[in-house]
Amino acid sequence: MSDVPLAIGIDFGGTSVKTGVLYRSNIVDEAPRIDTQNFEEATPLIEEIFRTISDLRAKHPKISAIGVGMPGFVDFPTGMVHRLTNVKGWVNIHLKRQLGGLCALPVTVENDANCMAYAEWKRGSGRGINHLVALTLGTGVGGGIIVDGRMVRGSNYAAGELGQTSIDYQGREGAYGNRGALEDYIGNQEIGDMARQFYADAGKEVSDAQCEPAELAIAATAGDEVAIAIWDKIAQILASALMNCCWLLNPEAIIVGGGVAKAGPLLFDPLNKYLRDQLSGPFKDDLQVLPARFGNEAGIIGAATLALEEAGYNVDD
Amino acid sequence: MSDVPLAIGIDFGGTSVKTGVLYRSNIVDEAPRIDTQNFEEATPLIEEIFRTISDLRAKHPKISAIGVGMPGFVDFPTGMVHRLTNVKGWVNIHLKRQLGGLCALPVTVENDANCMAYAEWKRGSGRGINHLVALTLGTGVGGGIIVDGRMVRGSNYAAGELGQTSIDYQGREGAYGNRGALEDYIGNQEIGDMARQFYADAGKEVSDAQCEPAELAIAATAGDEVAIAIWDKIAQILASALMNCCWLLNPEAIIVGGGVAKAGPLLFDPLNKYLRDQLSGPFKDDLQVLPARFGNEAGIIGAATLALEEAGYNVDD
Repeated sequence: MSDVPLAIGIDFGGTSVKTGVLYRSNIVDEAPRIDTQNFEEATPLIEEIFRTISDLRAKHPKISAIGVGMPGFVDFPTGMVHRLTNVKGWVNIHLKRQLGGLCALPVTVENDANCMAYAEWKRGSGRGINHLVALTLGTGVGGGIIVDGRMVRGSNYAAGELGQTSIDYQGREGAYGNRGALEDYIGNQEIGDMARQFYADAGKEVSDAQCEPAELAIAATAGDEVAIAIWDKIAQILASALMNCCWLLNPEAIIVGGGVAKAGPLLFDPLNKYLRDQLSGPFKDDLQVLPARFGNEAGIIGAATLALEEAGYNVDD
Repeated sequence: MSDVPLAIGIDFGGTSVKTGVLYRSNIVDEAPRIDTQNFEEATPLIEEIFRTISDLRAKHPKISAIGVGMPGFVDFPTGMVHRLTNVKGWVNIHLKRQLGGLCALPVTVENDANCMAYAEWKRGSGRGINHLVALTLGTGVGGGIIVDGRMVRGSNYAAGELGQTSIDYQGREGAYGNRGALEDYIGNQEIGDMARQFYADAGKEVSDAQCEPAELAIAATAGDEVAIAIWDKIAQILASALMNCCWLLNPEAIIVGGGVAKAGPLLFDPLNKYLRDQLSGPFKDDLQVLPARFGNEAGIIGAATLALEEAGYNVDD
């Protein structure tokens, strides 16, 4: 263990901040969560994060870098967080500068979906793959893109917003005026709405709990034809958005994670079918559609790994 | 002129092969076209291209590289052409190897849409822009993508197929089984079909000629409300596909060329509106939507420029 650098990864969520110590692909220690709702401004929360980091460093003196995944738009080079919608006082916060000043360690700040993609690319299902698209299916749909062995950030470091791409140019109006945004069809809530509609159309009475993705997976596995049809529809919609990524970027792998992906073959089998039925040879012959390796820990792992790499360490071991 | 390298660019089309000599951004000489229909196999056609090149080199002895843009899928590193649909005998043809052997000069072979994107990036509207999406609107819709100052080719060198991306997951079935492919809505032929439908719905009798993009532009400029509505619809559909590129790649510029783009503000004004109405700040604040600089000459310019760069010359002058 002596030569392998340790890093701290921070998964900054809308309600809590999770902090862990990463050794290779494993979180070897985790600090108590910080509840973001206890803070009215950014600075006291950053100071609390610093105390948490200090406690972990007291136990793990060889920490070499700190990475933070943020639930919002980040200016990657400066580590400035533009705005958080669910946490008070976070507007144009220079997190990299502030936290770096307190910790006297290199700090990297990145969007959370990019961190998750980074975790899969460097430590998970995408290891060794230089062209990949990773996405997480949960409350929303987030994504990250690797092209030619480099994370695609785009001109304003905002790239990878797969959940906002359209599957229907005349579809539902999304949060940014965008018609037919993927996450407005297969976000957790929207899957529930779809399920209620499917069951109603079939004349079956179900509870709201039965319309949640985990329950829909259990029902489909048990042979419930309505639930099977719901997963087929989710796969059809998702395949359209992923097909667009394939035609544009010709990736070698697509990695799908998040709670909804726990449905396994119920999702992946029809997804593979719809995807391959709509691509030509060079786009599908070598294409792998893979379940993500990591679950909720992806944020910490990705942030810590990215921070190590930004600090000059080789993480491809 | 002494230190600036010259290159030959070849625009290999379905019916003819155009060959020109490039000096900076200008085609300074052009050879007679070769009619592809006169050749039953690849090798005699390649030999004819070689003779054409030799004639040009006799006049321009300082040619340093040869670039070829192909209307099909190319294995970029080896310069192998997988298959041409409109030219006989072109299956797995090692064009780079064959032509390079005849000419004893470095030869680069690339997909034609990528050559056009390359021309705009290095010599045209996209000069100095490191994140861009270029597309051409004609019989089909082709595209090329630059990310972080590099052409995106993807794992099998097939990336950039913007015309095959979907604007409606339940839409028309395209050439590869893909539902809602952009070019099946706004290719030249499909614009004609759309126009006939719009005029029929409006109770107006028009000829087929009046439904061609150039005529629709004249009519719209003259105030024909049906024609204006057609351009609005084209822009709406195109905006959805381009919006997807923006959410995924966060480009700084989108460059639109090809015959249909000659409609100018009739297309670009509603396109800008639909695009900006469906993007958030970091994706649109610095986004430029630009008309392409080059027309039919883009293929020769792009192929020659790419060939120079691949041969180690600096083309950013």
